[in-house]
Amino acid sequence: MAPQKLKVAAAGLGRMGKRHALNFLNRTPRAELVAAFSPDPTELAWAKQHLEPYGVTLYDSYEKMIQQPGLQAVVIGTATSVHAEEAIQAMEKNLHVLCEKPLSTNIEVCKSVVEAAKKRPHLKVMCGFSRRFDDSYRDAYNKVEQGLIGRPSILRSQTCDKHDPSGFFVAYAAWSGGVFVDMAVHDIDLTLWFFGDDIIPKSISAHGITAVQPDLRKYNDYDNAVGIVEFHNGKIAYYYCSRMMAHGQEDTTEIIGTEGKLSVNANPQQNFVNYYHAGGITREVPAHYYGRFEMAFVKEANEFTAACLDNGPLPIKLTNAVKAVEIGAALQEALVSGKQIHYDDVGRRIEKAQL
Amino acid sequence: MAPQKLKVAAAGLGRMGKRHALNFLNRTPRAELVAAFSPDPTELAWAKQHLEPYGVTLYDSYEKMIQQPGLQAVVIGTATSVHAEEAIQAMEKNLHVLCEKPLSTNIEVCKSVVEAAKKRPHLKVMCGFSRRFDDSYRDAYNKVEQGLIGRPSILRSQTCDKHDPSGFFVAYAAWSGGVFVDMAVHDIDLTLWFFGDDIIPKSISAHGITAVQPDLRKYNDYDNAVGIVEFHNGKIAYYYCSRMMAHGQEDTTEIIGTEGKLSVNANPQQNFVNYYHAGGITREVPAHYYGRFEMAFVKEANEFTAACLDNGPLPIKLTNAVKAVEIGAALQEALVSGKQIHYDDVGRRIEKAQL
Amino acid sequence: MAPQKLKVAAAGLGRMGKRHALNFLNRTPRAELVAAFSPDPTELAWAKQHLEPYGVTLYDSYEKMIQQPGLQAVVIGTATSVHAEEAIQAMEKNLHVLCEKPLSTNIEVCKSVVEAAKKRPHLKVMCGFSRRFDDSYRDAYNKVEQGLIGRPSILRSQTCDKHDPSGFFVAYAAWSGGVFVDMAVHDIDLTLWFFGDDIIPKSISAHGITAVQPDLRKYNDYDNAVGIVEFHNGKIAYYYCSRMMAHGQEDTTEIIGTEGKLSVNANPQQNFVNYYHAGGITREVPAHYYGRFEMAFVKEANEFTAACLDNGPLPIKLTNAVKAVEIGAALQEALVSGKQIHYDDVGRRIEKAQL
Amino acid sequence: MAPQKLKVAAAGLGRMGKRHALNFLNRTPRAELVAAFSPDPTELAWAKQHLEPYGVTLYDSYEKMIQQPGLQAVVIGTATSVHAEEAIQAMEKNLHVLCEKPLSTNIEVCKSVVEAAKKRPHLKVMCGFSRRFDDSYRDAYNKVEQGLIGRPSILRSQTCDKHDPSGFFVAYAAWSGGVFVDMAVHDIDLTLWFFGDDIIPKSISAHGITAVQPDLRKYNDYDNAVGIVEFHNGKIAYYYCSRMMAHGQEDTTEIIGTEGKLSVNANPQQNFVNYYHAGGITREVPAHYYGRFEMAFVKEANEFTAACLDNGPLPIKLTNAVKAVEIGAALQEALVSGKQIHYDDVGRRIEKAQL
Repeated sequence: MAPQKLKVAAAGLGRMGKRHALNFLNRTPRAELVAAFSPDPTELAWAKQHLEPYGVTLYDSYEKMIQQPGLQAVVIGTATSVHAEEAIQAMEKNLHVLCEKPLSTNIEVCKSVVEAAKKRPHLKVMCGFSRRFDDSYRDAYNKVEQGLIGRPSILRSQTCDKHDPSGFFVAYAAWSGGVFVDMAVHDIDLTLWFFGDDIIPKSISAHGITAVQPDLRKYNDYDNAVGIVEFHNGKIAYYYCSRMMAHGQEDTTEIIGTEGKLSVNANPQQNFVNYYHAGGITREVPAHYYGRFEMAFVKEANEFTAACLDNGPLPIKLTNAVKAVEIGAALQEALVSGKQIHYDDVGRRIEKAQL
Repeated sequence: MAPQKLKVAAAGLGRMGKRHALNFLNRTPRAELVAAFSPDPTELAWAKQHLEPYGVTLYDSYEKMIQQPGLQAVVIGTATSVHAEEAIQAMEKNLHVLCEKPLSTNIEVCKSVVEAAKKRPHLKVMCGFSRRFDDSYRDAYNKVEQGLIGRPSILRSQTCDKHDPSGFFVAYAAWSGGVFVDMAVHDIDLTLWFFGDDIIPKSISAHGITAVQPDLRKYNDYDNAVGIVEFHNGKIAYYYCSRMMAHGQEDTTEIIGTEGKLSVNANPQQNFVNYYHAGGITREVPAHYYGRFEMAFVKEANEFTAACLDNGPLPIKLTNAVKAVEIGAALQEALVSGKQIHYDDVGRRIEKAQL
Repeated sequence: MAPQKLKVAAAGLGRMGKRHALNFLNRTPRAELVAAFSPDPTELAWAKQHLEPYGVTLYDSYEKMIQQPGLQAVVIGTATSVHAEEAIQAMEKNLHVLCEKPLSTNIEVCKSVVEAAKKRPHLKVMCGFSRRFDDSYRDAYNKVEQGLIGRPSILRSQTCDKHDPSGFFVAYAAWSGGVFVDMAVHDIDLTLWFFGDDIIPKSISAHGITAVQPDLRKYNDYDNAVGIVEFHNGKIAYYYCSRMMAHGQEDTTEIIGTEGKLSVNANPQQNFVNYYHAGGITREVPAHYYGRFEMAFVKEANEFTAACLDNGPLPIKLTNAVKAVEIGAALQEALVSGKQIHYDDVGRRIEKAQL
Repeated sequence: MAPQKLKVAAAGLGRMGKRHALNFLNRTPRAELVAAFSPDPTELAWAKQHLEPYGVTLYDSYEKMIQQPGLQAVVIGTATSVHAEEAIQAMEKNLHVLCEKPLSTNIEVCKSVVEAAKKRPHLKVMCGFSRRFDDSYRDAYNKVEQGLIGRPSILRSQTCDKHDPSGFFVAYAAWSGGVFVDMAVHDIDLTLWFFGDDIIPKSISAHGITAVQPDLRKYNDYDNAVGIVEFHNGKIAYYYCSRMMAHGQEDTTEIIGTEGKLSVNANPQQNFVNYYHAGGITREVPAHYYGRFEMAFVKEANEFTAACLDNGPLPIKLTNAVKAVEIGAALQEALVSGKQIHYDDVGRRIEKAQL
């Protein structure tokens, strides 16, 4: 008898949604993509050609899709604004959930997903922070676990996107939650991973500019921002987010310990080619996030599938997804208000008057 | 109706055979692994666990396997000595063939495969030189095609394996064809790719030592060898093969043109991690060939499958596989005999007396 | 007639003082070291052997030294606490002054040196920020000037020293001014160079930890600190100072513009050697600041000498030395107080109540 | 009393001659440049401005210069054709000699210098192979001595110059001795250093092309050449010389041992700057040999001076300079004749008939 495959549905067939669908269709041996949903006719047309012939049933209604008999799990790659609702609906249908980050830009909404998941402990509910599945980050994490750098104390991490002059990100800023929630959430999640998810912020500072997209200001957003989170256990993380890179995607992390340091992607590169020419030696850089992390998404799909089929532990706690957004939102608040934020040692906000 | 998938059988389930089987099973969406063969009970036991449950029929006889109804193609990953025979048998059963390199260490045998393939032009018969499917080599090739380095004139390429102190390679030398046929054949194939497969050698020199495996001498082989092939069109390729690397696999190529240069893998690395410690900054290196080229093998499986299903052109001419072995064997002869080999401008060997 | 050489005296023969003395003695062709002073008998004994034989008159009194007839300039490499006083005394004797950074850790004292220099505009008075003389920083600066990165908008810079477990830096913290004044002053000076010395801070945040030297706390200092300075012209600089590096000196700067980025020393290295071994590929890193910047100090000596002899402009404005300490002190205040500091658009401090 | 300084004269004030003169004038504290010679009025005019004011007596006759009273040493940077003669004349005047490489392109002439030096063992006579004074090569050498790579077995070394389209090198080929004598002599000298200067060649092969300077053929020279030297002690060196680099000077060496490998300059770079732009990340490369090795020439001048003043050992045996040219000339012969060269185990040439 053939081993059981996890029957998965894909919600959302936009840029990331398509990738999730194809990863579950083609690169997740233990999973079977059986359904897909998009409200968008163009996306459905694409699915008719690329998914339907391989046995994937298509839907223009999320509710209908999650009622498909035999379905076991859903991967949610729709717009952020519906992530939480769809995740909760899926759980109500007894489905495992892999949800694109963030659960929501609103912390209360994030928490509602965690509450829903707590009630169904047999379900696997994961918010996909792709960098946790990247071979390099995994290697760095293992080296930290082996004690190679002593006690991790400082974490520097940046998410820097290639400049998109189209103006897309101005419109996007209206609902993205701001650079720290949209971009730095990855860096914050890495912080929770490397420093421990029980860390408690002590104070938060952030500063930003609009160097290439001045219209972002109308949404209280910035195209370059720097933030510092100091934790109560004597650790600091500092972040840089930018949408202004000329050269491509540059997501770099340093974990600095008392006895050594690890860097991930300090030398960004597209591949192993160097081009030697009259101007020097040049290497190219991935243009996009997916160019850097494609294989991490594949591993994410496979590990999620394995956890569902084998009833094993998920590689990321769902509560981290809330905590990362909480810290991101605080950074964003510090950025917009121009004020530092302080917390006591159990994590309660200290108002300025009390300082 | 579901799109047709190519029904593939895997011959040989040793180290590379297993990888081919799994790549066709799991990472080649348009193919379906339907059969696998090994004469070895241990390998068959592995297959019983990892292949059979997914619908793969197992065989202990190659002849029987290729008679499986509906089979369309075979991937041959058995011992080199049976590559050619199995390839020809498959063609006789009207099967497409993807054969691990080399077709044979014997040139006449190689040619017999080409002859057999010529008689069945509707079949896709390819010898898998994996580096041709590597993203970095592809990028370098495209840059050459775009004229970025002018006219390619010098090619330096090396295949350097991590030292294996087990003595395995001494026994292996008895039938491997020697370092230039076994290892440099990749570098020679790259030469045919970058310089054009119509190039004609003019003279060949080679020198070798046994630095760590003196017992290789009994098989006329070497653990480190350097060779130069000068071509009639004013180009030179030079090669270094070694089985003595302490640090891991280091397969590096430089293509030097009249107006620029491209390097591939001049800075070998396992991933994007750097470890900073009291002794400096260290990056790790893949331990094995597959660590460097895994995704190239996946692409090879996919492109072969596409060529079969769509009746499209193969990415490598089968005749190149013969020519690469011919040049490799000549390098090996120059190495063992301590004599330079010369050719006239139509590629006929010039004997020493004629010089 | 031989061209005139600048007659220079060296004040202070400690670690840096010795280097300055030897650079003026041996590596500054247009200068002549004619005198040297140290209050320390051990240092004077060293000078008796290494300086006196080459025509350098030795002194145990600074006042006496600067009265030496014919003297034209003094290089001050004594303890920071006497820099300013000695600089002013030298000016009163009509001597040009090259003073090690900082002029003082006290801003009023810094300003008194600037005032003294303003009264004697014919004198060349420079505070030596060595990185301005480094070939790599110069190259980066020229590339910015050529417009290669558009408008510089974000500057990241770090001064990270190899961990010294001796406890020296605890004692040193008593009078160093703190990490931001002692270490980041270089990074701040670079900011003034790359962003323009007329930039006005808008807000300042800083956070620090004591990861390896907890005793630093008694002097209100930290072994790792991160700070952000936001400027009124839409630019941000952020800094990291550490005394905890296992691998050596790592002083890295990134200048990020609207159309490109420049990094300086993103890949620290001692020299051009890579060592390939079973653990990977390792390159070493300079252990100390001087290992990285030795040739910058030599160029500093030569350019200062040229400015004195040719009555040319100095490469660094003296007022920058004050401004760098001002910003450093504000970062240190923000670090110690745990409060953000704000400035209006003419640079006046805004108190919290006004916010 | 001031310590004695070595009184040095500089012969030849062409490109390299000027550099030697200035290095002895300004960057060799224990030496004093007292005289300089050039037959060329333009060069003498330069010297009138840059050397004479600093107490350097100028000559248009080498013979006259070496008679200057008090002179102790001469640095010879004239045309190769007069190196040997001038070196011998200097020795006859009891002068120490630092001679630019090569002593001569003719081996007998080289040997005559060695003979002359043997008769005056109190004189320091050195042929300046600059790479021996480079910090990186020194570091690599020390690491080999420490046993870090086991037994050095394979050496790959290249001297690759930036392409000079002016045609200068065609005229130069008339008397340069050919690429292997002119360029690879450095790589051969490194081989003698890393493998031991008692190594005996076993066989030599070489191949070359004229890719960008076809006119070189009339002087039996090549713009790209590859050669292999196999030694009797089980070691191999292989070389690549090119005058065709688009990107600048690229002199790279790998020393491959039984337990590790060292590379020197595997990643050529002008400085520590990386430029990130829409096309990727670019670093520049030194345009010329002196850009890479300037500080090595300074160290060479200083170490030669110290050996003369202190009667210490020279860092390079003079006989190596002969051996390096011998091997270079054999490579050039193999290149031009298209024939391999063989030697018996005491280094006697074996003619083809004997093979």
